[in-house]
Parts: sequence; C-alpha cells; structure tokens
Amino acid sequence: LKKVEEYENYFSRTLLDRKSEKRTNLKWLSAKQSHPDTVYILFSDLSPLVTLTGQQPEVRLCRLNYLHIKDYIANPDNFILVFLGVELGTKKECINIMIREDTKEEDEDEDGLVAWFALGINAICAEQFKQRHEDCYFLHPPMPALLQLKEKEAGVVAQARSVLAWHSRYKFCPTCGSATKIEEGGYKRVCLKEDCPSLQGVHNTSYPRVDPVVIMQVVHPDGNKCLLGRQKRFPPGMFTCLAGFVEPGETIEDAVRREVEEESGVKVGSVQYISCQPWPMPSSLMIGCLAVAMSTEIKVDKNEIDDARWFTKEQVIDVLTKGNQQSFFVPPSRAIAHQLIKHWIGMNSNL
Amino acid sequence: LKKVEEYENYFSRTLLDRKSEKRTNLKWLSAKQSHPDTVYILFSDLSPLVTLTGQQPEVRLCRLNYLHIKDYIANPDNFILVFLGVELGTKKECINIMIREDTKEEDEDEDGLVAWFALGINAICAEQFKQRHEDCYFLHPPMPALLQLKEKEAGVVAQARSVLAWHSRYKFCPTCGSATKIEEGGYKRVCLKEDCPSLQGVHNTSYPRVDPVVIMQVVHPDGNKCLLGRQKRFPPGMFTCLAGFVEPGETIEDAVRREVEEESGVKVGSVQYISCQPWPMPSSLMIGCLAVAMSTEIKVDKNEIDDARWFTKEQVIDVLTKGNQQSFFVPPSRAIAHQLIKHWIGMNSNL
Ligand SMILES: Nc1ncnc2c1ncn2[C@@H]1O[C@H](COP(=O)(O)O)[C@@H](O)[C@H]1O
Ligand SMILES: Nc1ncnc2c1ncn2[C@@H]1O[C@H](COP(=O)(O)O)[C@@H](O)[C@H]1O
Repeated sequence: LKKVEEYENYFSRTLLDRKSEKRTNLKWLSAKQSHPDTVYILFSDLSPLVTLTGQQPEVRLCRLNYLHIKDYIANPDNFILVFLGVELGTKKECINIMIREDTKEEDEDEDGLVAWFALGINAICAEQFKQRHEDCYFLHPPMPALLQLKEKEAGVVAQARSVLAWHSRYKFCPTCGSATKIEEGGYKRVCLKEDCPSLQGVHNTSYPRVDPVVIMQVVHPDGNKCLLGRQKRFPPGMFTCLAGFVEPGETIEDAVRREVEEESGVKVGSVQYISCQPWPMPSSLMIGCLAVAMSTEIKVDKNEIDDARWFTKEQVIDVLTKGNQQSFFVPPSRAIAHQLIKHWIGMNSNL
Repeated sequence: LKKVEEYENYFSRTLLDRKSEKRTNLKWLSAKQSHPDTVYILFSDLSPLVTLTGQQPEVRLCRLNYLHIKDYIANPDNFILVFLGVELGTKKECINIMIREDTKEEDEDEDGLVAWFALGINAICAEQFKQRHEDCYFLHPPMPALLQLKEKEAGVVAQARSVLAWHSRYKFCPTCGSATKIEEGGYKRVCLKEDCPSLQGVHNTSYPRVDPVVIMQVVHPDGNKCLLGRQKRFPPGMFTCLAGFVEPGETIEDAVRREVEEESGVKVGSVQYISCQPWPMPSSLMIGCLAVAMSTEIKVDKNEIDDARWFTKEQVIDVLTKGNQQSFFVPPSRAIAHQLIKHWIGMNSNL
C-alpha cells in the first residue's frame, strides 16, 4: 500500500464534495440556487458550455452565476437542475463567524459553502444563450472533445453529463409507464402513480444508472505482446484495449474472460484490477484490468469488432513516444485505455 | 500474478458458458427450448425452486426438463424465459459426428450443447406446480437462504434472478412510457412505439441493469483494528463492512472514500481492490476493497446506519473461529464481506 500522503494529494484533484445529505434539504438547495457565489455549468443536449482561454488556447468550462441563468429557470419546462456538490477547500469561514447562534438555522445557506449546479436547458434557450454570449460554445460532438478538459473539470462534467443523460432517457417509470417527478437535487425520479409498486420499498428504477464496463490490456503468454482491437466506427488506424459491459450475475474477472474470448477468440487466465474511470457516454464505469492470455490464436467475431491483433512492446512504445507517424495509433492520454497500455510497458506514472 | 493453472481451475467453478451469440439465433433457441436435454430452473416471485437432498440435507436447485414446464409456457402471459447459457464441458460429441455436412445447418440444435433456461412463472402457476411436486419448494425469503446454495448453483441463480428482477421492474420504456417486448433470449426489451428515441442508436434503456456497489474493509491507521457497521434492519449483534452505491461520474476509490466518510465520519486514504461478487438483490456488483483510514473518530450518520465501531483483530479472529458465541457476529462465509474480513486477518485461502 502506498503512503497516506499520496492520497491527501488525491483529494485536491477532486473539485467537489458531493454533500449528498443536502439533496433532501429543500430549503438549503433553494437558498443556494439564488446565492451569488453559486456556480452553474450549462448543458445543451448533454454538451457542456465551454470557452477558450489563455495564450495557448485551452478549453475551459464556463462557470456561470445565478444572474446568467435566472431567465432560463423561470419556466419549469425549460430545464433540468442537478446539484453537483460544494467546492472543496473554499469555505468562507468569515461568514460563519458572523452568524449568531440563534440565527444559525435561518442562515444555514450562509454556511460559506460554494454550491455547484448543472443546468440542462432546451435547444431554444441554448440558442438564445449563445446569441448573448458569443465567446462561449457548447462542446459538440462531445467525443473526443471532452478529453481536452482538465482532469478536475472532466470529473465534474462526467458527473453532470451522466445524471443529465439519465434524465433525458428515463422520464417515465419503467415499472408502470407513468410520468415521474424529480427529487433529491436531481438524483431521484419518483413515479407519479399513487399505487405503483416502485413506491413500495427502495428500487433502482428511481436512481441514476451506472453501467459497469470492463476494459482490459490483454498480454500475450510470452509477455512481450499485447492484444488491441478496433471497432468499425473508429477512425482508420486506431486500435485500443478490448472492452464490454459486465452482465448480470457476473464478476469483473468473468466478464474480462468472456468478452476477450467472444471478441477475439483468445482465452484469458489471470486478471488483475489496475484502475477505473467514469465514462460519461452516457454513464459507464470503466473498470481497467491487466489480463494474461492462455492462448494466442485470434478469431475475430466480425459482429462485435472489426479487427484484433497482437502488437509488440516495441511497436507500442514507438506509438506512445513518436506519436501518430506510425501505422497505427491509440487513444489519447486522458482515456483509460491509454493509461492501461502505458501501465503495461511500465511507462505509467499516474497510476 | 498467479500461475495460469490456478485459473484453469477457475473455469471449472463456473457452471455455464453464456454463449451470448446464440441470443439472436431464434431458430436455435426455439429448438433448444423443447430439446429433452435442456435444463430449466424455475422461479416464482424471484425465488428459485429448490429441493433438499442427501443424508445431511443440502439445498439444491431443481433441474427440470421440457416436460415439467411445457404446460406453463403454453400461455405467453404466464411466464418470462431467459436463456442462461450452455453447460461447460458436457458437449455430447457423438451426436455431432453423426451429422452429415449437408444437414449441418438444419440440425444446429443437435450440436450436443446442453442449454439452460430460467423460467419465471406467475403465482397461480407456481401454486399448481407445488401441488404436483411436493418435494420441491420456492426458496423464500431469498436472504439469507440463497447463501446455502453451492457456489456453482449460486452463480446461475445470481444471473437468472438479476435478469428476472429487471423484467419485473422494467416492463415499460423509460424514454416514452410505452409497453416493450422481450428479445435476445431475455436480455433486451425493445420499445413498441415506432418513433421512440430509444430505437435510434444503442441505449442502456433496453438492457438489464447492473448496479456497482463498493464494499470495504476499513483498517485503522494502527493496522490492528477494523471498522464494521450495522444497519437498523440487521439481526441484533450483526456487524459487517460498510457499503454503498457508486454514483455517476465517480471512481471506485472515490466512492469508497465518500461512503465511509458519509456513514461513519472516518476519512480514508489508500484503497485497494480485492475481489468482487455479483449480488442478486436485485442486481448489484459488489466491488470489495481494502481501505486504510486516515482518521479514527467515528461520527455515525443515523440516517444511513445504526452503529459503527472499531473492532480489534483479536475480536474478529474470535468471531471467525469460535462462532456466534461472541458479543457480535459477521455475515456467513459465502458473503463477500466475510471474505474481505478474512482476507484482512490473513485467514483467507479463497481470494
Ligand atoms: N441503484 C440504486 N438502487 C437502490 N438504492 C439506491 C441506488 N442508488 C442509490 N441508492 C440510494 O441508496 C439507498 C439504499 O442503500 P442501502 O440501504 O445501502 O441499500 C437508497 O435509499 C437510495 O437513497
Ligand atoms: N447497458 C448497456 N448499454 C448499451 N449497450 C449494452 C448494454 N449492455 C449490453 N449492451 C450491448 O453492448 C452493445 C454495445 O457495446 P459497445 O459497442 O461495446 O458499446 C450493444 O449493442 C448491446 O448489445
């Protein structure tokens, strides 16, 4: 196990504390919504509003405040609002000190915490907004553009985009087909039909979906080659780690063995978890593993993928160090596949 | 990495090959349904049909055949059918050899593979079945009874129960509220409304849900104590590892840190993945981790849990070796929490 200090740094890489206990505190949420310090990030059709800043232009999220978005949330049909959390390490202590004990409850929203919300607006509002703010634009199509965001902002976008994608596809109760209403700061949808069985007990129908996916760097039995594949929809020349959804009743390790065999015909023995990454397309949890092959013959299932091949360590090192001038290329460094490949050749400092 | 041979054993612990490519082969599926070798396992209200066998009676799944269940599948309203896979290592090669090349396609169902299906029947059919077969019963309530099943059968039940639970709660299209029809051997529900957006592209609304959950053995900074908690609904005296759902946009490691802090107030640094377990209540993937605490003060959130305490290694060893005669107890050995606790004290041979 690594030293504790490394993990204290870790926290500073996360931008927000989700403060899930505030999701049921309607008074606090509503006070924060109109608070001048509150940060809004805007989405249209699941694409975040960004701007280009700096001398070497960088893509950054637009951090809006209440005055920017006030008009759009006047009509409840226009938008979906999700409470994302509060900024880590920016509590404005001075405000707290000024609050007298007896007014504490009333001024709970004056707790110095800077709240963040994601606001999904419809196409008409988005068009209006762009006309008023010409330096901003919605990042579309999201891939691979989202991978340009800095790590901290990418995390916030992953959270917001996943929850908004769930709202866009899960408007109706899957148990009875009725309409639903939003609760808990955007993290719950409750069926409006009084006698729906989904209202008896706790059911996952009411909560955002997260789909676990395995993604694996498969290593040849000789240790010097790895198996990379490509899908038809990929840009020509791009190869990456095999991946697939975890099925009901399956372990992570079983899913790795099944997917590799289904897609490439290669049998896998040992599987080792390396690291994971939330992937907001629309809401997956990519679980990254190193897998050791027990067979080498490749039989590609053309229904699943376009091609799969063994690449030598030298080929992979060339691609990572000399860039795209090679006969093939791999996903950019922000993608977990890139990190898994790097990890295998021992070049990985981030994991 | 462990030796490859250990993982060949692993395969023999899995009972079925899911053969997902057969899910779209309607001809094969329908031939297998009435094939005399095909195995059916029966469910009523998500409880599997079992029987007691042996001198020291053991709970075993009832393996039925087509003749047992024929009457129940005559009416499409009575049942839900899920193709589970084919038995590993029981291919009856002799049959294959007898097939001439030119009849190969026609006799594809005579491939010697033994198919398994899960059949969920309604309450009336279940009552009828029990009257005809007095030695069988539905395992109800499922917990903790499911933990009595042998590992191989438990895996099949986890798969079947998760998919059936999804069918019972996701009958309607979440995108538009219309009715849906079942496809792909029970692994897909397709919206019946022609212009529903869920029919454009691939969306998770059509596929069974798997909810990733983190479950963690939290170790005290001194290395000699661990943090166990209990929920109000637990039997008195039972303590276990803390656990919680992974949220959208979150890594496994983030989820561990957030849940431990939310439930107990304890801050966690290093997190290490240990192993996982599908948990069919209704369809979770329990991701088991070892987590090292960076703080020790416990502040229980009474909305989330009932109690949380540090237990010494000695206390935990006593409970595991001397049984339930102690002041507290932990879940049975089939539960991943038990395995994580054992792993921590170095008593674990299964992981
Ligand atoms: N997919 C989900 N299924 C059920 N409960 C969820 C889900 N996601 C979040 N939750 C929350 O987790 C609580 C149940 O947690 P637990 O008591 O650990 O089973 C619920 O009351 C919900 O607030
Ligand atoms: N939760 C899910 N969301 C989307 N596709 C799924 C899901 N579960 C299984 N699938 C299957 O996975 C295929 C897409 O896989 P991929 O091309 O790797 O994104 C779909 O065509 C489905 O057959």
